Amino acid sequence: MSSKGSVVLAYSGGLDTSRYVIAYLAGIGQKKDFEEARKKDISREFVEFIWPAIQSSTLYEDCYLLGTSLTRSCIDCKQVEILQREGAKYVSHGATGKRNDQVRFELTCYSLAPQIKVVAPWRMPEFYNWFKGRNDLMEYAKQRGTPIPVTPKNPWRMDENLVPIIMPPHLYTKTQDPAKAPNTHDIVEIEFKKGVPVKVTNVKDGPPTRPPWSSSCAKRSCGQAQQQLHWRKVPAGIILYHAHLDIKTFTMDWEMHKTKQGLGLKFAELIYTGCWHSSECEFVCPCLAKSQEQAEGKVQVPVLKGQVYILGRESPLSLYNEELVSMNVQGDYEPIDDTGFIINSLRLKEYHHLQSKVTNR
Amino acid sequence: MSSKGSVVLAYSGGLDTSRYVIAYLAGIGQKKDFEEARKKDISREFVEFIWPAIQSSTLYEDCYLLGTSLTRSCIDCKQVEILQREGAKYVSHGATGKRNDQVRFELTCYSLAPQIKVVAPWRMPEFYNWFKGRNDLMEYAKQRGTPIPVTPKNPWRMDENLVPIIMPPHLYTKTQDPAKAPNTHDIVEIEFKKGVPVKVTNVKDGPPTRPPWSSSCAKRSCGQAQQQLHWRKVPAGIILYHAHLDIKTFTMDWEMHKTKQGLGLKFAELIYTGCWHSSECEFVCPCLAKSQEQAEGKVQVPVLKGQVYILGRESPLSLYNEELVSMNVQGDYEPIDDTGFIINSLRLKEYHHLQSKVTNR
Amino acid sequence: MSSKGSVVLAYSGGLDTSRYVIAYLAGIGQKKDFEEARKKDISREFVEFIWPAIQSSTLYEDCYLLGTSLTRSCIDCKQVEILQREGAKYVSHGATGKRNDQVRFELTCYSLAPQIKVVAPWRMPEFYNWFKGRNDLMEYAKQRGTPIPVTPKNPWRMDENLVPIIMPPHLYTKTQDPAKAPNTHDIVEIEFKKGVPVKVTNVKDGPPTRPPWSSSCAKRSCGQAQQQLHWRKVPAGIILYHAHLDIKTFTMDWEMHKTKQGLGLKFAELIYTGCWHSSECEFVCPCLAKSQEQAEGKVQVPVLKGQVYILGRESPLSLYNEELVSMNVQGDYEPIDDTGFIINSLRLKEYHHLQSKVTNR
Amino acid sequence: MSSKGSVVLAYSGGLDTSRYVIAYLAGIGQKKDFEEARKKDISREFVEFIWPAIQSSTLYEDCYLLGTSLTRSCIDCKQVEILQREGAKYVSHGATGKRNDQVRFELTCYSLAPQIKVVAPWRMPEFYNWFKGRNDLMEYAKQRGTPIPVTPKNPWRMDENLVPIIMPPHLYTKTQDPAKAPNTHDIVEIEFKKGVPVKVTNVKDGPPTRPPWSSSCAKRSCGQAQQQLHWRKVPAGIILYHAHLDIKTFTMDWEMHKTKQGLGLKFAELIYTGCWHSSECEFVCPCLAKSQEQAEGKVQVPVLKGQVYILGRESPLSLYNEELVSMNVQGDYEPIDDTGFIINSLRLKEYHHLQSKVTNR
Repeated sequence: MSSKGSVVLAYSGGLDTSRYVIAYLAGIGQKKDFEEARKKDISREFVEFIWPAIQSSTLYEDCYLLGTSLTRSCIDCKQVEILQREGAKYVSHGATGKRNDQVRFELTCYSLAPQIKVVAPWRMPEFYNWFKGRNDLMEYAKQRGTPIPVTPKNPWRMDENLVPIIMPPHLYTKTQDPAKAPNTHDIVEIEFKKGVPVKVTNVKDGPPTRPPWSSSCAKRSCGQAQQQLHWRKVPAGIILYHAHLDIKTFTMDWEMHKTKQGLGLKFAELIYTGCWHSSECEFVCPCLAKSQEQAEGKVQVPVLKGQVYILGRESPLSLYNEELVSMNVQGDYEPIDDTGFIINSLRLKEYHHLQSKVTNR
Repeated sequence: MSSKGSVVLAYSGGLDTSRYVIAYLAGIGQKKDFEEARKKDISREFVEFIWPAIQSSTLYEDCYLLGTSLTRSCIDCKQVEILQREGAKYVSHGATGKRNDQVRFELTCYSLAPQIKVVAPWRMPEFYNWFKGRNDLMEYAKQRGTPIPVTPKNPWRMDENLVPIIMPPHLYTKTQDPAKAPNTHDIVEIEFKKGVPVKVTNVKDGPPTRPPWSSSCAKRSCGQAQQQLHWRKVPAGIILYHAHLDIKTFTMDWEMHKTKQGLGLKFAELIYTGCWHSSECEFVCPCLAKSQEQAEGKVQVPVLKGQVYILGRESPLSLYNEELVSMNVQGDYEPIDDTGFIINSLRLKEYHHLQSKVTNR
Repeated sequence: MSSKGSVVLAYSGGLDTSRYVIAYLAGIGQKKDFEEARKKDISREFVEFIWPAIQSSTLYEDCYLLGTSLTRSCIDCKQVEILQREGAKYVSHGATGKRNDQVRFELTCYSLAPQIKVVAPWRMPEFYNWFKGRNDLMEYAKQRGTPIPVTPKNPWRMDENLVPIIMPPHLYTKTQDPAKAPNTHDIVEIEFKKGVPVKVTNVKDGPPTRPPWSSSCAKRSCGQAQQQLHWRKVPAGIILYHAHLDIKTFTMDWEMHKTKQGLGLKFAELIYTGCWHSSECEFVCPCLAKSQEQAEGKVQVPVLKGQVYILGRESPLSLYNEELVSMNVQGDYEPIDDTGFIINSLRLKEYHHLQSKVTNR
Repeated sequence: MSSKGSVVLAYSGGLDTSRYVIAYLAGIGQKKDFEEARKKDISREFVEFIWPAIQSSTLYEDCYLLGTSLTRSCIDCKQVEILQREGAKYVSHGATGKRNDQVRFELTCYSLAPQIKVVAPWRMPEFYNWFKGRNDLMEYAKQRGTPIPVTPKNPWRMDENLVPIIMPPHLYTKTQDPAKAPNTHDIVEIEFKKGVPVKVTNVKDGPPTRPPWSSSCAKRSCGQAQQQLHWRKVPAGIILYHAHLDIKTFTMDWEMHKTKQGLGLKFAELIYTGCWHSSECEFVCPCLAKSQEQAEGKVQVPVLKGQVYILGRESPLSLYNEELVSMNVQGDYEPIDDTGFIINSLRLKEYHHLQSKVTNR
């Protein structure tokens, strides 16, 4: 069968896409391939998408770990790969016309497969005049007997990974209510090389289960937070974020940190707005990686009732010279070196000197 | 008595300054004034120093709430005020020659009282060759019977406010061990106007005690964190930080947020390096304040066993248009407006088009 | 006549809009008002749009003085004012579908008159399939006898002000070919208060003509430059840019300069992308103005054969302390203050110390 | 002879160092080596220092091409290399205690040779109390018959390269007075690969002389400008700056440009403050280089009476799609793609909608 005119559907299996399965996916007969491709590849590739986010230590709008945005970028890339392979002319997705997911998805398509046409039902009058919103769609699915994973009273979608889960605090799949979590802590030890985690060990509970935070997160109800006004659950994300921050502070010069900070903010913006495949993102990622060459070592992270602490860290590359900062030992640094050390002080003196003259004129 | 040749001592009463009291402070006979000035004024003025930090939502090196730095700036300003009033020619402090505190203090002096000379014993060979470190100093104090608030085994200093306390996790004065905290939560409601907290209420426990977080923090063991490789306890700081972040996200345009982000990072750097009285800081503070004109509303913050959550928020100035983002309602925004909406997509198409040509040549 | 259904046309009188005059403007009968409004008001208002650009000292992409972008923002605001007054429901413009002018214009409309509908013929298939490009349009105008200001061989548009003129170097209306300009220079003196020019004097040629650069620019062929791959002529712009830069450097602390630099870059981006009416632009403009409080004084600018120099400057607010920087006089700054002055040096020592250890392991 | 206790002098041969030659350099017997090392190596190495500056397109404080700063960094590195080889314990320089040169030099020493001690006579009371300033020093040299290259009336120093020369406009060594330059232009063509110039041709004057700008600059009096309130002459610098800017705009995506802009500003600051050997500079340089991978092509630069223009450019990597921006041709971009294209517009609508509600309450 020729696939020249076929449509590939970006399919989450949630409400907006439950409806299309028969009409669209059946037509191209590749549901099985698609499913298998996803199972085999995506979870490993997803990790590759997460590394730069961890290396950048950046929170979008100071609060959002970017989990969902990264998930989308990863899924979208795989999707476009499939549609290129299938020689599809059209691609369709169920993202609504008001949100960022459509932007992310379509920018990926336009970047990687510029010849493709995007079909977005939620932006087509014949569709959105028929279904005024998700409630209409649920009603329609119910009438047709199409099984859907949500109901009007329980409309929350949950991705099946440990990075980003949006839901209200009373819903828990990967973690649990902190108040019900045991009152003892686990200790997770994370080892970093070049700013990415290479090994995770559950220090306290004996031999590591794999991945060790899976059980720790669940038991200790770690990782829930309000991010951008939504409850999100990022059990592994929040542990990695704090552990990386700690090893970075331990090994990276503070001016170096400030220098790369702007790139981190840019990276967050690029991911959030779906510009993964832009020239600027292809520039930012290796720069962020380069900034992490010293970020090596182990961090111990106790997890207790939803809270993540740092117990300690060690690194062969630490800039933290115990002798230098000690108040008990004289190092090769002689205090007299600092006498009036500040060229800055001259600058400030002059500024205030002038201010006083100006004020008095 | 003429004070023309007198030395004013920046006096914390900790180890480094316990020793000087007789020699220096007695000389100028103004200990009482000094103490009273501090008691009367500083706690109110300290609050003024904290507001811009809250408005900026900035963490130095992504992790440090700047509490200690702000405390120093506040104390130093008051100090210089006193020495100006006393007509002192010299000022002395016990900050060691290896740390940032001396920079902060001296920059404040040079800015506000450029004629003053700073005497820093820890940078004078006759002093630091005599006392090789704090251990020597403790021994000396012990021999002379000078009472000091620390011992070699317990050398931690604790500021007596709720913003920054540095200590190891097993020491608690204002808060307690999370594992021992009650397994129920308090709910603190914070009201903001122009980005600063104007009212705090303990929603759950009946009538507010004042300040309500004092008891909540203590009971719920809130606010301890590893910041810059040190345990710090910032019970009120951490609540205010998260509550402000939430109301800001709720009321501030995201591009507006990104625009002011650079100023926040600069502010953190200025505070950390003691440049409170620089022209750039005098520029940044009103700009940060201006950015907060919309940051108005109430945030409810549950506190449980050391963890701070956000329960909800309300604001008359919210940019969050429920109708606009809803997937259930059609607003005045028609989805068709978005068809191929992205001029960005053109840019990315061209970039990849060129890349493919270049790769193939 | 009711204007409820009328369309207001953004009318430059160039090729793309020559055609519409009869069909659209005649319909609403307000051509005269429009013309008069423009003549009376815009040139003064335009100046208000230029001040923040001068205060920001920013070049978009390091090279573009933003003249055209500012012109658009100014025209667009006036336009929306008129259409609000007329109660128009539609607004139309002749900007093509590939450029930034449409974005600027439409964002202004959506910001100030969100109820308005934009009609953009160059994006309507029934129009652009009819006229494949500007050549078709010129042919059509010729057939109909509609007078147009351009020809296929001479398609350049020139705005009639001294700020931005795009054209190839061999075309001159406001200035002339540098090679033909006289080999003597004019000297223009510009006086600034709070970073904006308040007085311009032609120092050399006797009594000032008004505006004095009009004749100076013309004679000295000043202000042409390649900006963003286009020849632009910004005779007054280039003089103001350099004069402002000089007075700013003379009066503004360098750290202050660096602090506001990010806002200047943001401002350039906002103007370039048409976001004049965004909350972030409403934030940036007063911040830029605040940064200029010290930028006061007079700058003398010789102009010779297209080149702009700086001869000298004076200011009551200069931070430039002749004594402080002099190598011939000892000021109140004692050199010994600098001995080993650099806390930075400690940081760098440690970094290289560690590097050598790591390299050798 | 053991050199363990020797002092290496950073020697420009200008006024401040003319005096030391006998006392210091003679002592260690390595003047010849030093001279030869400089002649052989520095001019080539200097070029390596300039490349990142060109790639960054950055002007310190928006006006300074950083020539002198780069010269210092280069000289200093070589100097430290020599003193390491000689096993010297001390290094001395003639930079005064009020300027940046001492900072640059000493930071380089502390970074590369942390064990070295710096002897800075201009900061030693026994020296600066003896010679109150440069006038005293000239008098002293005159009395002793030491030849010096400056006089009280003509105190300007000129580096013998084409990048940075500080002097008043009436002094010309490498260039001449624009008013006296011929009224015809030269055309210099510069070829870039990865953002650095690889070939320079004098297009107009027949076969290239090497380096071709040497004669062009001289004849056309190119490259003088007020930078940071000083006359500087940067004949080659100014041509390279403008040519690079042009090829960059022609080949680099504008968002890419904005992304790397912050690194350019940081680089300028690092060079200006002498932090060439910091970890952040070692990070910034390869990032800047990476940003230039597309910056390839030829730029033609006419030079006329001190003014630098751009005549044209060509590149195999241009992002400038003539068809895409043409108003005369329909490309594969259909204008309808832009209808209501701006998600931004939604944001601005909401902002103003809210503002109007708030204003009216």
